[in-house]
Amino acid sequence: MEKYGEDSRLIYDLKDQGGELLALRYDLTVPFARYLAMNKIKKMKRYHIGKVWRRESPSISQGRYREFCQCDFDIAGQFDPMIPDAECLKIINEILNSLQMGDFLIKVNDRRILDGIFAVCGVPDDKFRFVCASVDKLGKMSWKDVRQEMVGKVGLAPKVADSIGGYIQQHGGVSLVEQLLQDPKLSQNKQALEGLGDLNLLFEYLALFGISEKISFDLSLARGLDYYTGVIYEAVLLQTPGKEGEEPLGVGSVAAGGRYDGLVGMFDPKSRKVPCVGLSIGVERIFSIVEQRMEATGKAQVTETQVLVATAQKNFLKERMKLIAELWDAGIKAEMLYKKNPSFLTQLHYCEETGIPLVAIIGEQELRDGVIKLRSVASREEVDIKRENIVSEIQKRMVES
Amino acid sequence: MEKYGEDSRLIYDLKDQGGELLALRYDLTVPFARYLAMNKIKKMKRYHIGKVWRRESPSISQGRYREFCQCDFDIAGQFDPMIPDAECLKIINEILNSLQMGDFLIKVNDRRILDGIFAVCGVPDDKFRFVCASVDKLGKMSWKDVRQEMVGKVGLAPKVADSIGGYIQQHGGVSLVEQLLQDPKLSQNKQALEGLGDLNLLFEYLALFGISEKISFDLSLARGLDYYTGVIYEAVLLQTPGKEGEEPLGVGSVAAGGRYDGLVGMFDPKSRKVPCVGLSIGVERIFSIVEQRMEATGKAQVTETQVLVATAQKNFLKERMKLIAELWDAGIKAEMLYKKNPSFLTQLHYCEETGIPLVAIIGEQELRDGVIKLRSVASREEVDIKRENIVSEIQKRMVES
Repeated sequence: MEKYGEDSRLIYDLKDQGGELLALRYDLTVPFARYLAMNKIKKMKRYHIGKVWRRESPSISQGRYREFCQCDFDIAGQFDPMIPDAECLKIINEILNSLQMGDFLIKVNDRRILDGIFAVCGVPDDKFRFVCASVDKLGKMSWKDVRQEMVGKVGLAPKVADSIGGYIQQHGGVSLVEQLLQDPKLSQNKQALEGLGDLNLLFEYLALFGISEKISFDLSLARGLDYYTGVIYEAVLLQTPGKEGEEPLGVGSVAAGGRYDGLVGMFDPKSRKVPCVGLSIGVERIFSIVEQRMEATGKAQVTETQVLVATAQKNFLKERMKLIAELWDAGIKAEMLYKKNPSFLTQLHYCEETGIPLVAIIGEQELRDGVIKLRSVASREEVDIKRENIVSEIQKRMVES
Repeated sequence: MEKYGEDSRLIYDLKDQGGELLALRYDLTVPFARYLAMNKIKKMKRYHIGKVWRRESPSISQGRYREFCQCDFDIAGQFDPMIPDAECLKIINEILNSLQMGDFLIKVNDRRILDGIFAVCGVPDDKFRFVCASVDKLGKMSWKDVRQEMVGKVGLAPKVADSIGGYIQQHGGVSLVEQLLQDPKLSQNKQALEGLGDLNLLFEYLALFGISEKISFDLSLARGLDYYTGVIYEAVLLQTPGKEGEEPLGVGSVAAGGRYDGLVGMFDPKSRKVPCVGLSIGVERIFSIVEQRMEATGKAQVTETQVLVATAQKNFLKERMKLIAELWDAGIKAEMLYKKNPSFLTQLHYCEETGIPLVAIIGEQELRDGVIKLRSVASREEVDIKRENIVSEIQKRMVES
């Protein structure tokens, strides 16, 4: 419960019949850390897809639900700095590219840089996490409103808030890292220096991975969760993939993560640390974008079925069943209508509706001639294929298309 | 809650913070029926893999857990008799075959035949479901003990119990169906006749699908759940796939299902019926068998990684990162150690431990010659591949192996 900071109010808390305290899983990161600690695992790389639950107001148009699916990837273990971190960013880039999500940007920052900024600006230690939560709202809120929260709610002096604002409104590439390394105040702070040094190295590795142009060093990125200790990142879509002139899709970040070196130790009785870095993909958010795009472009979902086993005459159920079993046994994706005597038109319509590309037709004449008629739904072309060659012919057509 | 009969005591019942009544999903069938009714869907074929929960004593050696994974397949809709039912049995057969589960048998029965037997043997209507639950225990219990339960607990007359026993201890093929169709008492019962007629048709279809020899008409098969209305089935392993002379693996049924024509209507305000038939695969039970077999045959899990990007010298991290990014971008499964300067031996050991078959080695000499050394871990053979050909060479080797 105490691993999620302010977000813990979103945890679904339950009691079972035996009076035991239970909660629905809030994310996949904390359970992963607990698993490593309980099983004394020092090194692991894994992905995990599963449901998580949040006690918040759902927003279906934004793809935000109370029950949703996360896909996490994490690398745990003591390694040389920034090598696994760079791999996590490479993976986010690869996923968003291969899903053709359109133009996106991965914002990167480091908790230690933020802490350094707060320290040199004169924020008292006990207010760091509240200031951090305020910074996290920049983007959703204007700087003016964030500043007001810092002064009014958190109780910072206006000068301190302005000084923070001077730092966190900056974003850029590796040159901004170098510039901050020369900053007279920040360069005196040990934490900030460590963070900036690591980001410098990270940018070097990201260039080798060929993805620097997708990365933005964004000092306003804070990430709400308490457990991050180093680099943090968040991928946001820049353009909506819908039609031009349409409302932009209301979907925020689609992937996020960071380094959490202290979490495993919290679960270990001897506090042994296992450094971790990982990422989480917002599956529903991505689905909601893909679905809206499919609707916008009028692309219907296409069936995986490759061939419909059909007949143009009555009383050919047995022959259809025999043939479909052969196709299934050969690994061909085949369907037939669950009717003894379906009409030929119904069968053709079914193919057109669902997008099945081929029809294997059995009839009296075909049975006599020892052939099967193979029809292409798109071209309406029909050819007689010898019964013994039908499997290989369909397989050939599948490879071709 | 009321859809599971006696099994409802196994449902995890919870209360959330708002006082709402909640329960952890008991299976995937009842939620599927509810989904169809709520969305007024009249026809659907789908599979679903997900977690379910049972409040019972777990038995890890038998692969029985409180939280486990089910894989369901169902066909909903009004179709001609026994065509979708036969497909369900074909699918069970295909799954167990392709998982190489060893010899298995699919027991088949029909609820209407059981009800007919109970009726003609003189069981009062209100005792049907209790007698059914007793019959379901045959196999785990001897007939003597089941008979005792029927007489003692359920309160049947001994003559009635004996008469039931005469029927339910039979099993066989389609000839048993034909024999029972001639049974002077049973052939007078409408329900039993319907069930036997459908089973006759089912056996015909299963012969066309080429799986009759895997099917046993078993009159003792009852299935605990209340919602079945017609044909029911259960797949059991006949032989344990472990080593000869070893203890047989304690795993019961690995797949089961049946027809439930009334369930969707129970959720529909107008009681509109959607006939359904489906099956459920016991994923953990199958995993537990596969794992025990892998241990028995000494087959370790093999990594999917195809190549390790390695170096035999210091200061080649950048070159390794550049190369691995190229391999990833080409869809090759590649790893590297997350160290700036790993020892060459450590890298080779890692391949042997995890089963990575290839090593791509970068060094000073290779860099100068514009080549990469490709080493086969098994044969220790090394060849110099031109830098620009390394992707296609690895892809070629992958296809070959």
